Amino acid sequence: MRGPRSIKVLDKGFVRLVEFMGGDVGVVAAARVCTGTGSKGETNDRRLIAYLITHQHLTPFEHSVFKFHVACPIFVMRQWIRHRSSSYNEISARYTEAKDEFYAPRAWRTPDARDKQSSGAAPGVDQARCARLLKRAYAEAYAAYRQLLGLGVARELARLVMPVGIYTQFYWTVNARNLMHFINLRADSHAQWEIQRYAEALAGFLAARMPWTWEAFLRHGWTGTNGKLDDMKRLVSSA
Amino acid sequence: MRGPRSIKVLDKGFVRLVEFMGGDVGVVAAARVCTGTGSKGETNDRRLIAYLITHQHLTPFEHSVFKFHVACPIFVMRQWIRHRSSSYNEISARYTEAKDEFYAPRAWRTPDARDKQSSGAAPGVDQARCARLLKRAYAEAYAAYRQLLGLGVARELARLVMPVGIYTQFYWTVNARNLMHFINLRADSHAQWEIQRYAEALAGFLAARMPWTWEAFLRHGWTGTNGKLDDMKRLVSSA
Amino acid sequence: MRGPRSIKVLDKGFVRLVEFMGGDVGVVAAARVCTGTGSKGETNDRRLIAYLITHQHLTPFEHSVFKFHVACPIFVMRQWIRHRSSSYNEISARYTEAKDEFYAPRAWRTPDARDKQSSGAAPGVDQARCARLLKRAYAEAYAAYRQLLGLGVARELARLVMPVGIYTQFYWTVNARNLMHFINLRADSHAQWEIQRYAEALAGFLAARMPWTWEAFLRHGWTGTNGKLDDMKRLVSSA
Amino acid sequence: MRGPRSIKVLDKGFVRLVEFMGGDVGVVAAARVCTGTGSKGETNDRRLIAYLITHQHLTPFEHSVFKFHVACPIFVMRQWIRHRSSSYNEISARYTEAKDEFYAPRAWRTPDARDKQSSGAAPGVDQARCARLLKRAYAEAYAAYRQLLGLGVARELARLVMPVGIYTQFYWTVNARNLMHFINLRADSHAQWEIQRYAEALAGFLAARMPWTWEAFLRHGWTGTNGKLDDMKRLVSSA
Repeated sequence: MRGPRSIKVLDKGFVRLVEFMGGDVGVVAAARVCTGTGSKGETNDRRLIAYLITHQHLTPFEHSVFKFHVACPIFVMRQWIRHRSSSYNEISARYTEAKDEFYAPRAWRTPDARDKQSSGAAPGVDQARCARLLKRAYAEAYAAYRQLLGLGVARELARLVMPVGIYTQFYWTVNARNLMHFINLRADSHAQWEIQRYAEALAGFLAARMPWTWEAFLRHGWTGTNGKLDDMKRLVSSA
Repeated sequence: MRGPRSIKVLDKGFVRLVEFMGGDVGVVAAARVCTGTGSKGETNDRRLIAYLITHQHLTPFEHSVFKFHVACPIFVMRQWIRHRSSSYNEISARYTEAKDEFYAPRAWRTPDARDKQSSGAAPGVDQARCARLLKRAYAEAYAAYRQLLGLGVARELARLVMPVGIYTQFYWTVNARNLMHFINLRADSHAQWEIQRYAEALAGFLAARMPWTWEAFLRHGWTGTNGKLDDMKRLVSSA
Repeated sequence: MRGPRSIKVLDKGFVRLVEFMGGDVGVVAAARVCTGTGSKGETNDRRLIAYLITHQHLTPFEHSVFKFHVACPIFVMRQWIRHRSSSYNEISARYTEAKDEFYAPRAWRTPDARDKQSSGAAPGVDQARCARLLKRAYAEAYAAYRQLLGLGVARELARLVMPVGIYTQFYWTVNARNLMHFINLRADSHAQWEIQRYAEALAGFLAARMPWTWEAFLRHGWTGTNGKLDDMKRLVSSA
Repeated sequence: MRGPRSIKVLDKGFVRLVEFMGGDVGVVAAARVCTGTGSKGETNDRRLIAYLITHQHLTPFEHSVFKFHVACPIFVMRQWIRHRSSSYNEISARYTEAKDEFYAPRAWRTPDARDKQSSGAAPGVDQARCARLLKRAYAEAYAAYRQLLGLGVARELARLVMPVGIYTQFYWTVNARNLMHFINLRADSHAQWEIQRYAEALAGFLAARMPWTWEAFLRHGWTGTNGKLDDMKRLVSSA
């Protein structure tokens, strides 16, 4: 058992691991080509991985590759795609009709929320009213979309009215080096709460498939703050 | 005369050249480092540039760099950013309040429009009704956005209702090699009509700043179909 | 049977496939995410792959990834590494002692050799004398290297005398899109004869692991000239 | 005063600034597009740059671009070119005849040299004898090269005997983000002494052309150890 194939994220999203290559052993093999040797047993290999991360020798991690299938809202995807050293294929709203799938927050946050990671509803905000407003806005937008299609308009134009809260899907192929970088930036409490949840899911896959790398990353490579990851780091460090 | 600083695109968009470095001469200098020589006069230098493009020796074009300031709708930016070998900084809807600036097509197209480059209105579509529908959808979305802000919600959540037809802005730094690739893919008639207009504006800057490269690109590098560019190619080729 | 694990190249080199992910099916899956569908049977899937290559829609090929272990002379590696969109880990001459393994051409070519792909010896060149000269030069260089080490010099300095004909080794992880680009540039008759042989070996792995992609590439994507590949193209096209 | 155009490095090398675009002001402009504002005066702009580096928001530094002309030994260039996010055009030993220009260390180092940055000669090594050995090896190699050319062999084959201590030249275009990364890895005492000298020269250009960025990098971004840079950091920090 190597961990789950798919992890649910937000209300209707997911991250699914489609394929994977390399792993901890692949990192060791790529690093040891530099010195002309191979694996030297788990203890030595784990120490090597820790050394590589501590000293930012990150190219050996490029030889382990994850392919994910992701469903997330457009505004999340727009933050995601800033990570240019990886490969994307997204569902096209020019060639397919957009589905009525929108993201609704469980809790509405205020601009000055202290604990930006918290999913707790901001006390000063009328949660129910916000939820109703959002629902109506989504419904109006989707109705306009359907009406424009009904009037014979091309999908690529009808979608102009579509809110960035709508779900999209894409394939994402990324190596372990860039995945760690993604987690550092996007699981961090300064990132938007929604993409933090995706970064945590991705971290779950990294942990399941590359446990030595994951432990070394938590100890020596993780530069952010995130309740879950910080707890895991404490656990690992006290072991 | 080095061409304009800014070109208007669509109803409210623009492409503005902020800065530029290299030029045709820079291409020649970079290419000639390979053979240890410098410029050999215009005739030879133009011939060299034509040779480089014909034989797909494109690295010398990476040493000429354009920096643009762009305003375009989000759905255009989402196509744009697939071009990963360049640099982006976009206005953030987390840190700034979104402005009431939306894209309205001059003419509504049907899915099966023969001439995809044509801006002519599709005959079977009730243009006025589509325009009204769009206007109302934008107004409803923007009102919902303002209401959510008024309820104390963070901008990063209030923007969930924002349609992909809204304008955004970004800085884009790209070298001449990747700019030519962009034009080949995005000025082509298979690209969406709206991004074709941006690709034409970018082509205008390339033509003004790197005339030898532009002519050689039209003759030997341009792989798409586009009314304007095809006309220019004919002009150049008959000269 | 999925083809060989390792292919010998030149006199002492090789290309070994360490790991592989994706394949033709992976291309189809990545491409079909755009339209929200999956595989549609071999005939349709092959047609899709041919369509993607013909229209230069190459991102779906980025989701299939090869990891190679390569041994080649330094002068070949210096041409190879110009391909930046892939991952490298090379044996280090700072941390390991260089081995006495040098490339000796089977046949010496002249500058104006008509058939640049030909391994045939140039008639005007004293082959035996060239071979002796090379052998002595390698021997003198390696002796100087050993002497400098014997004098207590660091490996990173002793290697200054090392000729670019010496063999090195590296891990190379590359996706199918960039692999096809590599083959187009490096299997072509304008590339140096030696790297052409490596590009042919890589083509062999692509053909064995991604036969639909390989056939479509030969028909619609291959832009070079190369005896072997051109023959294969003719075979495929006449089928 | 904007600093020098060219800096000598090692015995026969140099780094020459060919062209430059952006600068500190360009970073600020790119960063402020995110918030829809422009320059806010030097004090605020410097603070912004420091903030960006401290929080690893590095994309705004991609809009400032340096183009260098570099002469360095091949073994240095082989380390340099591992930095893939930048552009290279190198003199070709296929198309031009290699010149008799080789690198000779001022001082020979031992493997276990404590102070790896020190150019001081290792006490246990017979410096004069090493220098003579190297000189003879270079002379023998170059003579073999000339003999092979004299026998009618193509340059691309004659160069097989050429040591990695020979000088090469290339154009290098790199943005400020990747330049800082380069300096962090290559000015560090773990890098080979020779490339450290090049990294220091590059740092000189960064300091002259982007003084605010340079100061912020020294304070908040520099992760290595290097005598010169550490001294500068102390100076800046005590100011």
